[in-house]
Amino acid sequence: MDIREEAVQKKRELQGFLTVASKYELKDAHDLSVAYTPGVAEPCLRIKDNEAESFELTCRGNMVAVVSDGTRVLGLGDIGAAAAMPVMEGKSLLFKRFGNVDCVPLVIDTKDPEVLINTVKLLQKNYAGINLEDISSPKCYEIENRLKAELEIPVFHDDQHGTAIACLAGVKAALRLVKKDLETAKIVVNGAGAAGANIARLLYLAGARNITVLVSSGVLHKDYKRLDSLQAELIEMLDLESKSGDLAENAKGADILLGVSAPGVFTKEIMESMNKDAIVFAMCNPTPEATYDEMKAAGVRVAGTGRSDAPNQINNVAVFPGVFRGAFDVRASQITDEMKLASADAIAALISDEELAEDNVMPSVFDERVAPAVAKAVADEAVRAGIAQKVK
Amino acid sequence: MDIREEAVQKKRELQGFLTVASKYELKDAHDLSVAYTPGVAEPCLRIKDNEAESFELTCRGNMVAVVSDGTRVLGLGDIGAAAAMPVMEGKSLLFKRFGNVDCVPLVIDTKDPEVLINTVKLLQKNYAGINLEDISSPKCYEIENRLKAELEIPVFHDDQHGTAIACLAGVKAALRLVKKDLETAKIVVNGAGAAGANIARLLYLAGARNITVLVSSGVLHKDYKRLDSLQAELIEMLDLESKSGDLAENAKGADILLGVSAPGVFTKEIMESMNKDAIVFAMCNPTPEATYDEMKAAGVRVAGTGRSDAPNQINNVAVFPGVFRGAFDVRASQITDEMKLASADAIAALISDEELAEDNVMPSVFDERVAPAVAKAVADEAVRAGIAQKVK
Repeated sequence: MDIREEAVQKKRELQGFLTVASKYELKDAHDLSVAYTPGVAEPCLRIKDNEAESFELTCRGNMVAVVSDGTRVLGLGDIGAAAAMPVMEGKSLLFKRFGNVDCVPLVIDTKDPEVLINTVKLLQKNYAGINLEDISSPKCYEIENRLKAELEIPVFHDDQHGTAIACLAGVKAALRLVKKDLETAKIVVNGAGAAGANIARLLYLAGARNITVLVSSGVLHKDYKRLDSLQAELIEMLDLESKSGDLAENAKGADILLGVSAPGVFTKEIMESMNKDAIVFAMCNPTPEATYDEMKAAGVRVAGTGRSDAPNQINNVAVFPGVFRGAFDVRASQITDEMKLASADAIAALISDEELAEDNVMPSVFDERVAPAVAKAVADEAVRAGIAQKVK
Repeated sequence: MDIREEAVQKKRELQGFLTVASKYELKDAHDLSVAYTPGVAEPCLRIKDNEAESFELTCRGNMVAVVSDGTRVLGLGDIGAAAAMPVMEGKSLLFKRFGNVDCVPLVIDTKDPEVLINTVKLLQKNYAGINLEDISSPKCYEIENRLKAELEIPVFHDDQHGTAIACLAGVKAALRLVKKDLETAKIVVNGAGAAGANIARLLYLAGARNITVLVSSGVLHKDYKRLDSLQAELIEMLDLESKSGDLAENAKGADILLGVSAPGVFTKEIMESMNKDAIVFAMCNPTPEATYDEMKAAGVRVAGTGRSDAPNQINNVAVFPGVFRGAFDVRASQITDEMKLASADAIAALISDEELAEDNVMPSVFDERVAPAVAKAVADEAVRAGIAQKVK
């Protein structure tokens, strides 16, 4: 059966995939008294006296909300709050399966960023963290920045940072294989949406100093018709005004080519023009800029896609469950850039020198070491930075 | 160990009592493709084309939010959103245990009814129903009425209707035992808060025609200092302006005395002055207007309290799980007064004539027949009234 039809049938059969369960069995009147009245009064009073106790005495401490307005759902675009629910539900399953993080969908029926921000602020006492999901750019930048500044709990827009962290992890492992340095490697990022722009930004923060960001019209410049705040920041950060040319020109001699753009745009000629030991991650989903086989046929040494049916899957599933697990374990107040860098390093470090190979620069999504390694990196960094509110 | 201390310890040990679980196991890449990308795209599109599908294809269809602003939590008063969480979590457990309804806490950090109403409206696509909880009166009336009018999904303020339905069920069974009629029985309701006012209102809707409602100053009159909209409605409905006197005067010769007021106010003298075969439900929690033993010692024939350690527990746990179960089963668009009456009848009918006794007018909270019986009554009534959007 087609996978999409199977998804509909299974979801209809089970009435969705997510359910709520009890950690405390209600067998008799005693149990009722503990879970509800009169016992419950005491946890209430403890929290009233010290709100931090809400993270320890209720499900809040392990609960993330996957917040979306449904304005940019997968490749489907602006389909609205109700229609976004299956994605939020799926994401909740991934949080649980890989990070043992409790997660609930929270679609908000508005397209106004201000309304969304205010709604999340009103609801923060239910959650230990907020995962923003499938919100269109550029408003996603303002929403994330504002919520980070105005909430007491960590906020993470996975579409921006999840893929960026996974991509940086893959780049770092691949560079180890081909024995090149991140700082001097010539890197081309094709695409400047939420994922592309953050890939470029995180690479820069990790030490890369030769990064060119392209949009369909060529190098991202100040006159780009829909220039957003993050793109403007990147133009300064990467000195993009001094660069020019289209994808074909910039790919020439490049060490690394990263695609978050459109299906099929990495032609054989473009890839063949790259430097020796080329690294190409074609992350457009579900149809990449070039297939794994096309990349290998064009002489690319390390090829990756977002797909699970080819080697080197660059997938944010490796990232967000561990990021929130780590943040919750020490009750970090924020997800910082340093945590993102540490997460990428932790993922890359899972591939030992012996395991490292052209077709193995990324651990499998089902590698059970990934989320704990990311969690530890995030928690350790929170402690180091002094933003851990609890020591495990 | 003290039950309140046990609640704190257990909640700390388990980090709260509520967790999220998956109904679909993620074992391999195929499962990921079904639960997340690319499979999830199809359920999204089905819902985009027909929003009703969101109730069938996602967890929404079985999900209720327990909404509170924390302004009137148990006997603790206005303790705020975070401190209300343990109660909402406990309520969620009860929904699951007794109604197999998935339920999540949703505390909203505001005291402004307009903000609460707007927030719930923005979030309704996540849920199949809204259970309002621990919101102070009189704002709870406006909030419930507005949400009922403005949401597409059912709304139920349990503090108003849950106890009222359970109380009506107990009254009906008790009247069967003592062979008196609801219509002619002299009924005194002591207390005119959210629970008391709705008990009086539901008794009237059920056919009772001799109901007096008392506040601490005597019969509820138009000059009551904090008169709210429901109280004003009751004064007209029950012709209270024609009545007078205090509790002692009104209890004289009464058939039924219902307390939702203050600990200990039902004295021996008051209860002894009632008619033969007196029915008294002293529902103030956790300390009733009179204990079960005090009521029996005063010659009360059928005595009930809100407590689990005495016979005839008048408890809303008998009500809300079945009400939402039934509403969700047929996707009822509202919880109507007729459903409330049908629920009370269904509960009362569970006590057969053979079982009916002074100490057995209410089924036990753990009687597994209760929620299905209430659910059936609610679903049948929805179908009868033409507000069932789905036939089971």
